[in-house]
Amino acid sequence: MKQVIIVGGVAGGATTAAQLRRINPDINITIYEKGRDISFGNCGLPYNIGGEVSDRDKLIAATPESMAERDIAVKTNHEVLRVDSDAKKVIVKDLAEEREFEAEFDYLILSPGGAPRTVPALLDVPQAFVLHNLEDLDDIQAHIKAQDVNKAVVIGAGYIGLELIENFAARGMDVTFIHRDDEIYRPLEDDMGGFFVEEMEKHGVRVKLDTEIVEVDGDVATLNDGSQIDAPLIVAGIGIVPRTDFLEGSGVALNDRGFICTDAYGKTSVDCIFALGDAIETFYQHVDSKTSVALAWGAHRMAYVISNQIDGNSSVRFEGLLGTNIIRFFDYDIATLGLKQSEVAEYDHFIVDHKQRNKAGYMDGSVPIRARIYVRKDDGRILRAAVVGTEGVDKRIDMLATHIRLGGTAPDLVNIEVAYSPPYSSPKSVLNMLGYKTIEKMKKVKD
Amino acid sequence: MKQVIIVGGVAGGATTAAQLRRINPDINITIYEKGRDISFGNCGLPYNIGGEVSDRDKLIAATPESMAERDIAVKTNHEVLRVDSDAKKVIVKDLAEEREFEAEFDYLILSPGGAPRTVPALLDVPQAFVLHNLEDLDDIQAHIKAQDVNKAVVIGAGYIGLELIENFAARGMDVTFIHRDDEIYRPLEDDMGGFFVEEMEKHGVRVKLDTEIVEVDGDVATLNDGSQIDAPLIVAGIGIVPRTDFLEGSGVALNDRGFICTDAYGKTSVDCIFALGDAIETFYQHVDSKTSVALAWGAHRMAYVISNQIDGNSSVRFEGLLGTNIIRFFDYDIATLGLKQSEVAEYDHFIVDHKQRNKAGYMDGSVPIRARIYVRKDDGRILRAAVVGTEGVDKRIDMLATHIRLGGTAPDLVNIEVAYSPPYSSPKSVLNMLGYKTIEKMKKVKD
Repeated sequence: MKQVIIVGGVAGGATTAAQLRRINPDINITIYEKGRDISFGNCGLPYNIGGEVSDRDKLIAATPESMAERDIAVKTNHEVLRVDSDAKKVIVKDLAEEREFEAEFDYLILSPGGAPRTVPALLDVPQAFVLHNLEDLDDIQAHIKAQDVNKAVVIGAGYIGLELIENFAARGMDVTFIHRDDEIYRPLEDDMGGFFVEEMEKHGVRVKLDTEIVEVDGDVATLNDGSQIDAPLIVAGIGIVPRTDFLEGSGVALNDRGFICTDAYGKTSVDCIFALGDAIETFYQHVDSKTSVALAWGAHRMAYVISNQIDGNSSVRFEGLLGTNIIRFFDYDIATLGLKQSEVAEYDHFIVDHKQRNKAGYMDGSVPIRARIYVRKDDGRILRAAVVGTEGVDKRIDMLATHIRLGGTAPDLVNIEVAYSPPYSSPKSVLNMLGYKTIEKMKKVKD
Repeated sequence: MKQVIIVGGVAGGATTAAQLRRINPDINITIYEKGRDISFGNCGLPYNIGGEVSDRDKLIAATPESMAERDIAVKTNHEVLRVDSDAKKVIVKDLAEEREFEAEFDYLILSPGGAPRTVPALLDVPQAFVLHNLEDLDDIQAHIKAQDVNKAVVIGAGYIGLELIENFAARGMDVTFIHRDDEIYRPLEDDMGGFFVEEMEKHGVRVKLDTEIVEVDGDVATLNDGSQIDAPLIVAGIGIVPRTDFLEGSGVALNDRGFICTDAYGKTSVDCIFALGDAIETFYQHVDSKTSVALAWGAHRMAYVISNQIDGNSSVRFEGLLGTNIIRFFDYDIATLGLKQSEVAEYDHFIVDHKQRNKAGYMDGSVPIRARIYVRKDDGRILRAAVVGTEGVDKRIDMLATHIRLGGTAPDLVNIEVAYSPPYSSPKSVLNMLGYKTIEKMKKVKD
């Protein structure tokens, strides 16, 4: 019987295991997971802190026991130390028993994810945490309970940082936000993000930009401006690095940032070794260029592709990503897709901006949406889009992703027939108007 | 200077006039409107009753005066009685002055809209209204105020009927819903509409199915079951018929239901005569078949197409419609697109049903969405879709419309990369799952 080994049991690994079992009952599947838990909804972790996921156990989609019922072996607290591609085996360490062993595979699936970056000044601070997995969540919740904590310091202005701010505030805690520069949430255009500070202040969050913690003594943190703040709980969300050290010497190619190179079938540079999730480099769907997108949609799609590949169905392929993403920050929805701002300059393009109400403008309670698209001058294709507002942003970004995927251009947006009724849109929707504006702009460019 | 005459000054006519003026300053434009007002948001009328459009004047997008500023002549209370295509003139009646005259055109644009159907028993009942235009709205509001009415009877289970029920209830009125059969809101599949009666009863609406008013005496209506109800205000929303009688003898071809036949350029069977809006027959985007869709999106799009045609830009064309539509009914959103249920049987198809929460299932307050697609057996294309739920329905139907328009099939739905974050979707979205289920179903069909 074929042996499949999966490294990492969170979203990517667990989903691939379940998918593979569904389509092929005659294959041995073993998951090695370094941590305590598998298959938890890591995107949901912050919302348990805020109370919107009131039942913490609902975050657990599968357990080693429930996997065993589907004939999938799960070894938690097992770290894969090395991969021997020639011998087709992995060297595994049972972290509880402090024991090393080898395991052979016919197919190896790498879903190691990322490791959270750390802040040097917080390394030995007992009340400093990250929020990367369920253990972290449990530790934070236990600390809050044990110390009756009502103040939180959040470091980092990425999506984890913002979600932490929102959720600590939702819990009624006194929140201080510390960020080492003044650019909040890099995925969004600076000039579209004017609401970030406003929104925090509205919700009683103290905002400290261009600020770092230099030392923590007991519950007091000293900042780089010399001031001191109460810091009985500190959570840092400053990004992740791919956890791919164990692949050294395996022959599995990594890019220069340590991400595993993969193709449209989830294959790495080594035959019979596949990879998915936050630690891979994949490719854009709409331009000929590589990217890494640490988001769940791609991991779930790739789980399906890889399990079909291993089952011998080679027709299923991965189309690449647009990196479609969204985050809620208090009342705001912030969504982007496509190239990063830093990448867009490589293409000759123009920008189309548009502001319009989410529903018919005469409706009480209609609110503005701001949308921006980056349009290729040569063929009118959309390189990047950003949409912000307090309602209906998710609809517009998902429609853009749907449109771009099938080759829809910016001028072509005029033809999207939206479902119109006053509570949902204008007859000429936000996307239609972006299209009409593009047409006008293209005429001017030609003139 | 070229003369353009437009028949009808509501959405279709007014938008075409404004659009044409924008692209061509050197053309004479005259609108003849039979009614008192032009360019009002007729889809918003019910929401002024309910209070969600608290400022009635916001419903007015343009007035004869504001049109005059853009050099567009507007003649309200002017009915076009006949069209002489050979002589290129219309015969117009000034309803106020009771005077007839002729006007010559180089291009004629027909946007006459529909006339609301009537209930025979209500013909001479002073408290019986329809809600088709701003005059109707003003009459209803005046009647409510003058008589201090707190009870409303609504007849009809189409979208106007449902919107009236919701809005009279939102106003705090005592509402009775009367419908002559037991099928509520025909656009939606019966077995997906179980919530209609429930929702009405929850909001205190009395539901009387298989019921008709046979007589009204003073404020008391007698029903066909012999019972009597208080009826100080009755509003009927039982559909419209195209207002195309005036085209008799014009040579402009109508279909057998009286709709004006148009092509992809908005042209009728007569050269130099165009038509748009609720009174036209157009064609489906996704199958080779005709349809009439009395919705605003198509009218707005066609306004752009026709004005470009007249301006000599023949490259702009109308792609046809999916009939994408949505309605809010109390807490529910109800959306469909594509073929009517009665039309779907003409194609060899299978049905894929799916139910999934609007956001990550572990989030408190996530709610179910029900979606159904009708898939062609031969090529997997989507013939029709229906989506219902209490949140996130508009997003899914608009994504489906975007997808289908560009040739996306049902199995292809798996590839739509949605913006995932727990408040907005699952990583495998409703549409992705419809795709995966389609693939499973197609395998079974093949086996």
